[in-house]
Amino acid sequence: MPQDVRFDLPFDTPVSEHLEYARERHLRWVRETGLVRSRAGFEEYTSWDLPQAAARTYPHASAEDMVVLMNWFSLAFLFDDQFDAGRPDRADRIAEVARELIVTPLRPAGSVPRVVCPITLAWAQVWDRLSDGMSLTWQTRFAASWGRFLVAHCEEVDLAARGLAGNLGLKEYAAFRRRTVGIHHSIDAGERSRGFEVPPQVMAHPVMERMRDLAADTIGFMNDIHSFERERRRGDGHNMIAVLRRERGCSWEEAAAEAYDMTTACLDEYLRLEARVPRMCDELDLDADARERVGMGVDAIRHWINGNYEWALTTGRYAAAKEGPVATAERAGRGSVDDLLTV
Amino acid sequence: MPQDVRFDLPFDTPVSEHLEYARERHLRWVRETGLVRSRAGFEEYTSWDLPQAAARTYPHASAEDMVVLMNWFSLAFLFDDQFDAGRPDRADRIAEVARELIVTPLRPAGSVPRVVCPITLAWAQVWDRLSDGMSLTWQTRFAASWGRFLVAHCEEVDLAARGLAGNLGLKEYAAFRRRTVGIHHSIDAGERSRGFEVPPQVMAHPVMERMRDLAADTIGFMNDIHSFERERRRGDGHNMIAVLRRERGCSWEEAAAEAYDMTTACLDEYLRLEARVPRMCDELDLDADARERVGMGVDAIRHWINGNYEWALTTGRYAAAKEGPVATAERAGRGSVDDLLTV
Repeated sequence: MPQDVRFDLPFDTPVSEHLEYARERHLRWVRETGLVRSRAGFEEYTSWDLPQAAARTYPHASAEDMVVLMNWFSLAFLFDDQFDAGRPDRADRIAEVARELIVTPLRPAGSVPRVVCPITLAWAQVWDRLSDGMSLTWQTRFAASWGRFLVAHCEEVDLAARGLAGNLGLKEYAAFRRRTVGIHHSIDAGERSRGFEVPPQVMAHPVMERMRDLAADTIGFMNDIHSFERERRRGDGHNMIAVLRRERGCSWEEAAAEAYDMTTACLDEYLRLEARVPRMCDELDLDADARERVGMGVDAIRHWINGNYEWALTTGRYAAAKEGPVATAERAGRGSVDDLLTV
Repeated sequence: MPQDVRFDLPFDTPVSEHLEYARERHLRWVRETGLVRSRAGFEEYTSWDLPQAAARTYPHASAEDMVVLMNWFSLAFLFDDQFDAGRPDRADRIAEVARELIVTPLRPAGSVPRVVCPITLAWAQVWDRLSDGMSLTWQTRFAASWGRFLVAHCEEVDLAARGLAGNLGLKEYAAFRRRTVGIHHSIDAGERSRGFEVPPQVMAHPVMERMRDLAADTIGFMNDIHSFERERRRGDGHNMIAVLRRERGCSWEEAAAEAYDMTTACLDEYLRLEARVPRMCDELDLDADARERVGMGVDAIRHWINGNYEWALTTGRYAAAKEGPVATAERAGRGSVDDLLTV
């Protein structure tokens, strides 16, 4: 199945001018912090081009913040890959590290991790910068979004460790995917990247809540389509195409076509809600400044939908044809060639 | 030092009419769930009279919700007592259980715990009821308040395990006490107990944020005064009177007098801010319904300040003179006679 499945997005989004400046500093950082260790790991990591993903999803970040956002992406993606199907007992260590990542934003700034490994040390450093200047309300929202994602990630790993990853029904999978995709906190970070906050009464409004969920669904399903070959290689059943194929008893091609239609349906509903935003602002009686921040909040969602999409079309992470140590590791059920959960 | 140190609170608060009904059901529940096991543990537990604390701090809860709130209090207080100075390695198990308690509100309702013991099973059950009918915004706020408290609790246990509990300076201790007292989530629960929510823009306002912090300081310092003898018996240096005595090189009596003055200073500042609430509502241009919910939010804080105070004057938990297995356990550095962290 090809990686570069195209969607018709009715909006375009910018790319940060700081991409190359930040990429260089970021790549130095991942080696210094031990997040990428082996030569094979580094080659694989650079092929993913996460700096491009960060530059597209946070196009308005300052040059220095762009480095921090790239650093954050690296630890999140690399942690995501630490499960090893050949070592199901590793699920407990993943849960331990995930819980450390969850509690970091609940501690005062500058605290040191209680569970120490390259991932947790990197996150403590990134969080100090990511939280800088943001209100308690934003930090609370980010901490909960991030925590919900990591809890869901652990559930995914636990299912895989018990050999049950491919057993979810369609409805159950869709609800689970919304949690594992990690979009809510990614959108939250958009506010930090541009130095603003969406008014709290807007964040609590059903229109905004639903828009965020639909963005998560859209991106999660798109990701399942674009990353399909990597996940098939890893034997990972946590993919909408695999779920549909089993549920419908149809071919891979038919399952992929239905996943495509589900994705565009989510995107369409998202767009219909976007059109209701001005009415929501009227209803909440927002002034011009608050409306501007709502507009930037909607931008942050768009940056994620389109930025992630453009990146996914070409990233080496999802490449269909892959050879070498990384492909061998993936075929053996490992996501990564480097172990990042031990000191 | 006497337990019943009096403060001059300029407001009174009601007591739930469901106290006795809920007490009976609650006491059955703590035995059924294994939260209280031994005879000595049950006698000690009933002497604390946590049902009175719940009935005073959540006076408007329904009869059934009152049982749930009492159940919640029991697991929180009993977990708080699980550290054993003779077994510093237990700090790791406490952290593991605390992190399970933190992630429970980040999971979908009805999920089962990943770390299983009487405390985590009880909390999963309580959270299903405590979250029922509350918005995502409230659940997010509660989860973060609760998580910050539990993280601070683990830090306190870690300090005790390393024999460093009594080494904090005054300023450091005051900041730490605000986190370990656990008042923010306790006030959050007031909304659930009465079936309303404070508008999110009010929760994000500096006046409300500061009022919550000052309520936490007031209650934390009062608690240090009322629970002083229990903590001295346990050799627990996490107490304002102990900190002041060391910091000032003064007598216990002088330290207690200064702690008293600090408490009333916090209370006075809280009251000055309460008087600014109508202006905050004007500034936020709130309608009558929103103002009513703000008023109930302020009530929830008052219920905690006064309800906790009235309970602390007489609870057996803080009794100065105590004999028997519980006092022996306390003198040996254990908070509890029953182990609740294993299955």
